[in-house]
Amino acid sequence: MQSFESLSQQFAERFSVDHFPATPPTLYDPNRYFLQLGGKRVRPVLCLMGNELFDDINPDSWEVATAIELFHNFTLIHDDIMDAAPLRRGMPTVHEKFGASTALLAGDVMLVAAYESLNRTSGRYVHFVNNLFNKTAREVCEGQQLDMDFEKQSSVSFEAYLQMINLKTSVLLAASLRMGALLGGAGERNQNLLYEFGRKLGLAFQVQDDYLDAFGDPEKFGKQVGGDIKANKKTFLLIHALEAATGGAASELRQLLDNDAPDKVARVTDIYRACGVDAWARELKETYYNQALGHLDDVAVLSARKAPLKELAAFLVQRDY
Amino acid sequence: MQSFESLSQQFAERFSVDHFPATPPTLYDPNRYFLQLGGKRVRPVLCLMGNELFDDINPDSWEVATAIELFHNFTLIHDDIMDAAPLRRGMPTVHEKFGASTALLAGDVMLVAAYESLNRTSGRYVHFVNNLFNKTAREVCEGQQLDMDFEKQSSVSFEAYLQMINLKTSVLLAASLRMGALLGGAGERNQNLLYEFGRKLGLAFQVQDDYLDAFGDPEKFGKQVGGDIKANKKTFLLIHALEAATGGAASELRQLLDNDAPDKVARVTDIYRACGVDAWARELKETYYNQALGHLDDVAVLSARKAPLKELAAFLVQRDY
Repeated sequence: MQSFESLSQQFAERFSVDHFPATPPTLYDPNRYFLQLGGKRVRPVLCLMGNELFDDINPDSWEVATAIELFHNFTLIHDDIMDAAPLRRGMPTVHEKFGASTALLAGDVMLVAAYESLNRTSGRYVHFVNNLFNKTAREVCEGQQLDMDFEKQSSVSFEAYLQMINLKTSVLLAASLRMGALLGGAGERNQNLLYEFGRKLGLAFQVQDDYLDAFGDPEKFGKQVGGDIKANKKTFLLIHALEAATGGAASELRQLLDNDAPDKVARVTDIYRACGVDAWARELKETYYNQALGHLDDVAVLSARKAPLKELAAFLVQRDY
Repeated sequence: MQSFESLSQQFAERFSVDHFPATPPTLYDPNRYFLQLGGKRVRPVLCLMGNELFDDINPDSWEVATAIELFHNFTLIHDDIMDAAPLRRGMPTVHEKFGASTALLAGDVMLVAAYESLNRTSGRYVHFVNNLFNKTAREVCEGQQLDMDFEKQSSVSFEAYLQMINLKTSVLLAASLRMGALLGGAGERNQNLLYEFGRKLGLAFQVQDDYLDAFGDPEKFGKQVGGDIKANKKTFLLIHALEAATGGAASELRQLLDNDAPDKVARVTDIYRACGVDAWARELKETYYNQALGHLDDVAVLSARKAPLKELAAFLVQRDY
């Protein structure tokens, strides 16, 4: 059983190989640029941990983990185009640096490279792994489309937002764990439990992400606090506030969404506090987190083997940055 | 042995199923819209014919043919974004009708759907088929990038243009044939011969395409004659003319490329004729076409089985519309 740090380091080392040919450099240099921006590599490590929960790491798991990380980076390159995001990890995004057409194509070929890694696995699980990978890829696209749809809607229900986050964020964490579990020889029941663990962990993670945007410590939080509020981004907090706020608070919140007041962030967070959205979000996160841990508890392996996954889950959900 | 018409009709019927779920319609309606615009379905039929050259159609070939056609449509949706093309088959392109972000995502999910079809094949050939599919997908992206790179260059060599066309157009025709041959039980030598047949056929096809743009009969040619000339698009003809023209013709051609004269199309085609570019292109097409047929001749099956492929090849290269 290896820790997140140890697996993350090993994965980063293997992942640092060049995934692309030399030519044409106009296509592949943007891919190399983007991958060297780094990242926590949480998803591939979840795959490796899902495997190690049941058995020593299957060589195929490294290939699947690589496929997952390449897929994740494909979604980031394309999402950045759609969001017209200028920066990613503090550096210019691919479309910003190389143009939108090249970013589009670099993302496409990154997705193909993910499938190339997937196809490097040995025969035994290839159909099942491909099946889950494809289903997940499709769902992540659906989640991104719903996210864009929501930007144009004045109100979004909690259930609809939850479903969007489930697709856009949770299913990839869940599938990473399940593919690892499968390659580690887990039976279907244990695979399903790990999938649900990942799904709920993803929801808790997103609640925490939304929470930190409004209530994070500016000294610790990497991004600008209040960025979601400034952009009127639908978040767990805003959606709940729109449902929970009444009377003057409700109309003030609506007004703040329609007009960009200079003190918008402070006033929206004040409304959040007045409506108890902060406490509600902390509780919601705990609920999903505890549901996640419950699924992990039910997995039929010695609890000592679960320690690294528990540690990673706690880190993802309790981080304050 | 079935004719192109018969196989094309059968494929069209099978392909007319809905490849996408109902929700979210904001993502999948654009995909459905694009697929119902139709097309000749040449690539999937090449796969089926590659199979039937050796044996009755393997059920897997229908899935691979579907994957190929979905892949081809993915490239069209994304190419149209990159080219800012307003129309495709006389109808609004996906980005024109649904916006660039949705078109990007619709293309992504079309590619995932292609891999889903591919993964529906039975186990025996899955690694090999995936390998060739991935390699080809990567090369098509490289070809598109080179095409965009060339737009920014004042001159492109014949060899560089040939390599771009090979990647952007030929390898998918070649791989379609080879995957079908593999599924039909062909040995490696015959697979390679069919691949080369497809590659050369693709080059002949592109020469014909470039030729018709300048010298096609406006009554028969579907597109506007001279479209490539107006857009200064690099074509076999322009590249050869820039190499072959001397003296006054060379400087006039350079001038016409720099300025949009109202009679540009007529004057450029006059220069093409004066430099013998029309005869050169007809000869180049014949050369590639004959090389293609030579590879097909070498395939070790009864020549009667080759009749439908020969017929399709002649149609693709000799069409005047």
